[in-house]
Amino acid sequence: MEKTLAELAEWVGGRISGDGRQVISDAAPFEDAGPKTITLARSAKYLRRIDHIHAGAIIVPDEFEQAGLNLLHASNPYAVFARILALFHPAEQLPKGIHPSVVVGEDAEWGAHAAIGPMTVVGNHVRIGKRATIYPGVVIGDNVTIGNDVRLYPHVAVLERCRLGHRVTIQAGSVIGSDGFGFAPDGDIYHKIPHTGIVQIDDDVEIGAANTIDRGTFGMTHIKNGVKTDNLVHIAHNVTVGENTVLVAQVGISGSTTIGRHVVLAGQVGVAGHIHIGDHVMVGGQSGISGDVPASQIISGSPTMPHKTWLRVQRIIPRLPDLRKKISALEKRLQNLESGGKG
Amino acid sequence: MEKTLAELAEWVGGRISGDGRQVISDAAPFEDAGPKTITLARSAKYLRRIDHIHAGAIIVPDEFEQAGLNLLHASNPYAVFARILALFHPAEQLPKGIHPSVVVGEDAEWGAHAAIGPMTVVGNHVRIGKRATIYPGVVIGDNVTIGNDVRLYPHVAVLERCRLGHRVTIQAGSVIGSDGFGFAPDGDIYHKIPHTGIVQIDDDVEIGAANTIDRGTFGMTHIKNGVKTDNLVHIAHNVTVGENTVLVAQVGISGSTTIGRHVVLAGQVGVAGHIHIGDHVMVGGQSGISGDVPASQIISGSPTMPHKTWLRVQRIIPRLPDLRKKISALEKRLQNLESGGKG
Amino acid sequence: MEKTLAELAEWVGGRISGDGRQVISDAAPFEDAGPKTITLARSAKYLRRIDHIHAGAIIVPDEFEQAGLNLLHASNPYAVFARILALFHPAEQLPKGIHPSVVVGEDAEWGAHAAIGPMTVVGNHVRIGKRATIYPGVVIGDNVTIGNDVRLYPHVAVLERCRLGHRVTIQAGSVIGSDGFGFAPDGDIYHKIPHTGIVQIDDDVEIGAANTIDRGTFGMTHIKNGVKTDNLVHIAHNVTVGENTVLVAQVGISGSTTIGRHVVLAGQVGVAGHIHIGDHVMVGGQSGISGDVPASQIISGSPTMPHKTWLRVQRIIPRLPDLRKKISALEKRLQNLESGGKG
Repeated sequence: MEKTLAELAEWVGGRISGDGRQVISDAAPFEDAGPKTITLARSAKYLRRIDHIHAGAIIVPDEFEQAGLNLLHASNPYAVFARILALFHPAEQLPKGIHPSVVVGEDAEWGAHAAIGPMTVVGNHVRIGKRATIYPGVVIGDNVTIGNDVRLYPHVAVLERCRLGHRVTIQAGSVIGSDGFGFAPDGDIYHKIPHTGIVQIDDDVEIGAANTIDRGTFGMTHIKNGVKTDNLVHIAHNVTVGENTVLVAQVGISGSTTIGRHVVLAGQVGVAGHIHIGDHVMVGGQSGISGDVPASQIISGSPTMPHKTWLRVQRIIPRLPDLRKKISALEKRLQNLESGGKG
Repeated sequence: MEKTLAELAEWVGGRISGDGRQVISDAAPFEDAGPKTITLARSAKYLRRIDHIHAGAIIVPDEFEQAGLNLLHASNPYAVFARILALFHPAEQLPKGIHPSVVVGEDAEWGAHAAIGPMTVVGNHVRIGKRATIYPGVVIGDNVTIGNDVRLYPHVAVLERCRLGHRVTIQAGSVIGSDGFGFAPDGDIYHKIPHTGIVQIDDDVEIGAANTIDRGTFGMTHIKNGVKTDNLVHIAHNVTVGENTVLVAQVGISGSTTIGRHVVLAGQVGVAGHIHIGDHVMVGGQSGISGDVPASQIISGSPTMPHKTWLRVQRIIPRLPDLRKKISALEKRLQNLESGGKG
Repeated sequence: MEKTLAELAEWVGGRISGDGRQVISDAAPFEDAGPKTITLARSAKYLRRIDHIHAGAIIVPDEFEQAGLNLLHASNPYAVFARILALFHPAEQLPKGIHPSVVVGEDAEWGAHAAIGPMTVVGNHVRIGKRATIYPGVVIGDNVTIGNDVRLYPHVAVLERCRLGHRVTIQAGSVIGSDGFGFAPDGDIYHKIPHTGIVQIDDDVEIGAANTIDRGTFGMTHIKNGVKTDNLVHIAHNVTVGENTVLVAQVGISGSTTIGRHVVLAGQVGVAGHIHIGDHVMVGGQSGISGDVPASQIISGSPTMPHKTWLRVQRIIPRLPDLRKKISALEKRLQNLESGGKG
């Protein structure tokens, strides 16, 4: 595909300086940019070397100016680069149509332009929207509902009655709708709590690889619009994850917890059950959250504390042996003084 | 299905007050209870609002009494609710029989009433008991033995020679019998230690989604009766997990460790190899266990300590910067005194 | 298979004492050794009981001598045992040939002696070397290149364009080539960063079960020769893992980090993005690494510190409540002294 710089600028709503007729055929990182590629220079580190590369065009911050180059000015250069990169590198297309090996249940339907790869199993009464891209080896349970423009990678399982919205992508190996972990103790043994609920995933969600999202005991586990999860994330029964919240790899969220909008949980964070995390909270890696968190906090640690406190605590922990020595020394000196005072 | 309250009471062994002829057609949470549903009120929070709902019947603690309502008195209301819920919501049934796409090896046998879904592969010399429910896309290796009433969800792999008991449920994507992580260092490289052992899972075990349970180097990795694991749990080679032990999500257990009965490891706990954890131990989330733990301890933290100590330590850690300041202040004041004493 | 002790000694390059004509038909642990098995005694614990077993032969350290027994002396007894064990217990062989259910794309090729199990899907333009062992239910994407003597266990997915070297083993359920976790924030929403790169895995690598290895945003995520990963390990986009590095279960490595050779990250370690860990670094379990680590360090903790410091800190943390009390007591005593000075 080829576009002129002017066409790209119009598409992303940016301003050009230099030659709008410059033909662009790819987007690439700064170091790899060639005469027909557009690249990104959004920080001083790259902007000061902008003369040293021979890119077809460079996406720069709005206020940055330099004569003699083809520049695409943007208030959010990274987002513009992402959009142009996606234009030149659309997601892989599978051959349209249903592979003859696919097993389809009764009363299953899908919209136009579906691509369903080999060895996939589609249950009874399944509804799939338009332009589905379903890789080989996927299992879709009975009565599942799926929106338009969904991508399911190999070995994804979407179990019975779960619902996916539009433009949902699920990376390979993830499980949507496993039973929640609920057992009623009775003397020495446990009775399994049946999980009669579902998982609902709203629009524009991306689920990473090898996630496990349990269905609700009753009702639903709810992943709202725009949520992004990284790999190996665990979301227990009846959790709600708010709009545009980001869960980094290996995060685990216990049952019935609600997480607000625009929250970021960094890698390996653990969250207790039945608590609430407010909107716009940011949590540092490996933190352990055991109680409610008000909105707009930046916290870290296990137990969690304000991130600024954690930064100071982090410096003190390795010095605890010194602190202990100081305390012992103080005790001795004080004892000396006290006995001296008595003497 | 419909049952009278009297029938339910007889089945669970409970006592009724009110009208035993009340017809019950479902079980539901407190807030959702309707005129033919039975619900649960086991704590003061719900019991004090017991007049405000219009349930067909309510499961209450043995000693609770209130006139004018249909009550099912139970010493363990939660367990009774779980059992009645399971009666009205039995686990999903697959169509009986073997889907024509299933690939079956030589000399593989299963008992009556088996349901084996599409795209599943059953190896040579496999033995499966009665009433098996095997979802699509499961792989069962050669010489695997499986008991009665087993449920294997999509993409479960039970690898060669492993053994599952009766009433074992394995949620989607779990791996039973991967090679243990054993390599003998030899200069710069590693020689793989062959893993000739198996995984044995006893009766009434539930394994969560995306677990990895490695086979023994020699002998077996042993998951005993009644164990329940949550999602993304890792169990290394030659581990023994004792009866009715509970492993919450993302727990990892290193090789050759033995865990007693009725142990609870909360989420993200890590356990070192070659250690022993006694019966009835409870471990808080994210704890790191590096040595033996005697029976009946409640511990938390990394390093682990008595849980009560950990609760106090948790409050102090965020105040470490203050403690350090106090120590510095003490040092100065002491120095003042000391020099004053000399002056 | 039967070998004489002399044949085994020649094969591993070891020295014999006793009868080299002794026939050996298996290798087994010390306690299980029988008259035709060879076993291992590499530490005093076993060497002092060497007279109490009736093994066909015993692998012992070079310098150990004892008359009347068949001994195989080796400078690295454990590695020799691993090699001999592998001789008697070769990895499971699948039936040679391509199962008729396998779906093969256009222009896909493999070398001699391939075994590809049922329900596996091989994409277009795939190249697979000689003696491939591919279990049931594997998905290999378009344009994937795979070397000789590779073993892929059930439900492995190797996605488009990724490259595997020779003698690579991937345990069940692992995902090679999922999209990296990259999103450009734009007001309330995120734009997905397309991931145009690949995963390259070099020779003699073993990947555990249920790993997730993301492809590069650009370029590659690179797993170099001899790397071994345990189960449930996460490796993000554009990470490099150096030769013979060992990643224990549930380790997570964030994007664009480079890890040197012969590094060992113990279980549940988390590594931040865009950092460098030097060669021969060893990191204790559950540590959190947030900055560069020079070569040859032994570190632990979160934050990380020298392992020796961590051992001392570990002992102090549970005593923090005592330390706080001591500080309070010091303050009171000092106040007494100070007011006494004034009085």
